[in-house]
Amino acid sequence: MYSEDFLKPDGRALTLYSLTPIRVDSEIPSPGEAVEARPVLRWHPLRAEWVMYAAHRLGRTFLPPPEYNPLAPTHDPQHPTELPRGEYNIAVFENRFPSLTLNAPAPAPVPGVEARAGIGRCEVVVFSQDASGTLGSLPVEQVRLLIDVWADRTTRLTEIGKIRSVLCFENRGVEVGVTLHHPHGQIYAYDHIPPVSATMLKAAQAHQHATGHPWLADFVAEERAVGRRVLRDEGEALSVVPPFARYSYETWVLPARPVSLLSELTASERDAFAAVLKDALLRLDALFGVRMPYLLTVQQAPVGGEPHPEFPLHIEIYPYFRAKGRLKYLAGTEQGAGEFANDKLPEVAAEELRAVTYA
Amino acid sequence: MYSEDFLKPDGRALTLYSLTPIRVDSEIPSPGEAVEARPVLRWHPLRAEWVMYAAHRLGRTFLPPPEYNPLAPTHDPQHPTELPRGEYNIAVFENRFPSLTLNAPAPAPVPGVEARAGIGRCEVVVFSQDASGTLGSLPVEQVRLLIDVWADRTTRLTEIGKIRSVLCFENRGVEVGVTLHHPHGQIYAYDHIPPVSATMLKAAQAHQHATGHPWLADFVAEERAVGRRVLRDEGEALSVVPPFARYSYETWVLPARPVSLLSELTASERDAFAAVLKDALLRLDALFGVRMPYLLTVQQAPVGGEPHPEFPLHIEIYPYFRAKGRLKYLAGTEQGAGEFANDKLPEVAAEELRAVTYA
Repeated sequence: MYSEDFLKPDGRALTLYSLTPIRVDSEIPSPGEAVEARPVLRWHPLRAEWVMYAAHRLGRTFLPPPEYNPLAPTHDPQHPTELPRGEYNIAVFENRFPSLTLNAPAPAPVPGVEARAGIGRCEVVVFSQDASGTLGSLPVEQVRLLIDVWADRTTRLTEIGKIRSVLCFENRGVEVGVTLHHPHGQIYAYDHIPPVSATMLKAAQAHQHATGHPWLADFVAEERAVGRRVLRDEGEALSVVPPFARYSYETWVLPARPVSLLSELTASERDAFAAVLKDALLRLDALFGVRMPYLLTVQQAPVGGEPHPEFPLHIEIYPYFRAKGRLKYLAGTEQGAGEFANDKLPEVAAEELRAVTYA
Repeated sequence: MYSEDFLKPDGRALTLYSLTPIRVDSEIPSPGEAVEARPVLRWHPLRAEWVMYAAHRLGRTFLPPPEYNPLAPTHDPQHPTELPRGEYNIAVFENRFPSLTLNAPAPAPVPGVEARAGIGRCEVVVFSQDASGTLGSLPVEQVRLLIDVWADRTTRLTEIGKIRSVLCFENRGVEVGVTLHHPHGQIYAYDHIPPVSATMLKAAQAHQHATGHPWLADFVAEERAVGRRVLRDEGEALSVVPPFARYSYETWVLPARPVSLLSELTASERDAFAAVLKDALLRLDALFGVRMPYLLTVQQAPVGGEPHPEFPLHIEIYPYFRAKGRLKYLAGTEQGAGEFANDKLPEVAAEELRAVTYA
């Protein structure tokens, strides 16, 4: 993997990643003036979680043309995008409108609520220079590179010294509000351990304590023994519809060897992980013959403190269609009680996904 | 309040509620044959929550006409709806396609996951015989009746002896997948305490323990002292944009006297609660001049065990528009980390909502 760091004119960091040597053929652009972000965290006392507030002052100095795509390489210097022209595969830069920043100032006290600076970092990950593709349709080598990029970002964000949890994700689909079609994802780096990560860590620790085994090892062994919920098994990595899926076609990608961070995967494990991930995404797109809107999250252990080898590294994919063209919405029970209703048994969903063929 | 119980031809329960004496002018209908529901709960070991599965066998014996509205009173006996003709204001019946039922059978063991019967009850609450209205536009007496109905359902579901938590809610808006426009809500009664309720209870207990005061009393006193986030104060009830709002125009309706269940509210407190709730909903509809899609949940204490007087009864309204026509979607950070990003400070949202006028 090749990588090179740059600084954008507006002060944000940019890193280019590539399978082949990097070459930059234009200025490093920013799409406009610096945005002053002063993100704040406030404590929700009844849900026991932080809420991020980011009210930005925008300093845009140009009106983009209709087809303007900020994630494409800059071709017209009058309309700079986020990225230069050149030879590279994947780009990562600080989000221009971040929910968290490393240098967020302490907010003025707000009566009635505990508030503090929104410390953290939000990054955008552009998966490809080609605006028309999808993550699943990229060459497997480039999906593999993305695994490396996610691992590298997690390591580098940890090295900053302020970060306790890194969430890499992709949210895809006009159906769920994604306005930029260029294949890309995001990274949120928090200065604390968010609720989902805390719950998973606690559960995995309890399992390890009770059984002496990592949760991931037992889960993989059980899914392989049962067999019918496995979508693809490449030996060092596999995909399953978990038997407790919350979304109808929820798919998890897991390493066969229990690790807690992407950076712990060996080269050949990453190859298998990428192949299984690509397969999972292509199956979901082929399932109904339309691009499946989805949320993909990389679940990794908390960072920046003691290691948590018991945490099960895995990818969760939440497909938003529960049937062709029929979106799953989170309504009363999901949001008001925190409990999901799912129409489809995981074994049935797995059978459908196993039967899918794709070119 | 008048109420009367009926049994539908397919075996489901129906209760009619009214401000004036009830009169039924037709047969009690069912829209089709009985649906065999065998809901199942499976345990999500990493999120430490139950997931509800309901794969129903449908026994529909008729094709409804295009304008068929199952929540309207039956006018054509060839196309029975859920409700009879007659004199009543609000109707409650068991959901024909429930996610939980009181007599769910134990499922066959599923290797790899902890599974059990989906015990509970799902009800539909029809707010009015008029299909064209909204909850906020109903006469305040009818909103007040709905408070009584929610209180009565909670009490009666508790009396069954198997229920530990009751969630009354309304999910409204085509934008969030609601296909029936007839004003209605739902009730989920669980045989356990779901995650959100458990977290709130724990937080409220910790507050009570640490300060000696109910959380709700301190919160109401603080919001009244600060003032600017209060939308309407009727003395015995008030509405606020909480200082830790997760949705841009999130609005809470609270009683001024801390109670844990709707049934504990006095008659005059219910009057005030209804007036404040109606005002909150009308403000949200007037904010952008379009019907605001929203989720409304009634947060009440767990039931069926020891009382939890420290639990803060309140209504939470999550408006889904963060700007006119712009929906808030739950993406990576909300779903993958459990932490919300909100563009708008609660004080700004409150200022906008306070400035709203409606006819």
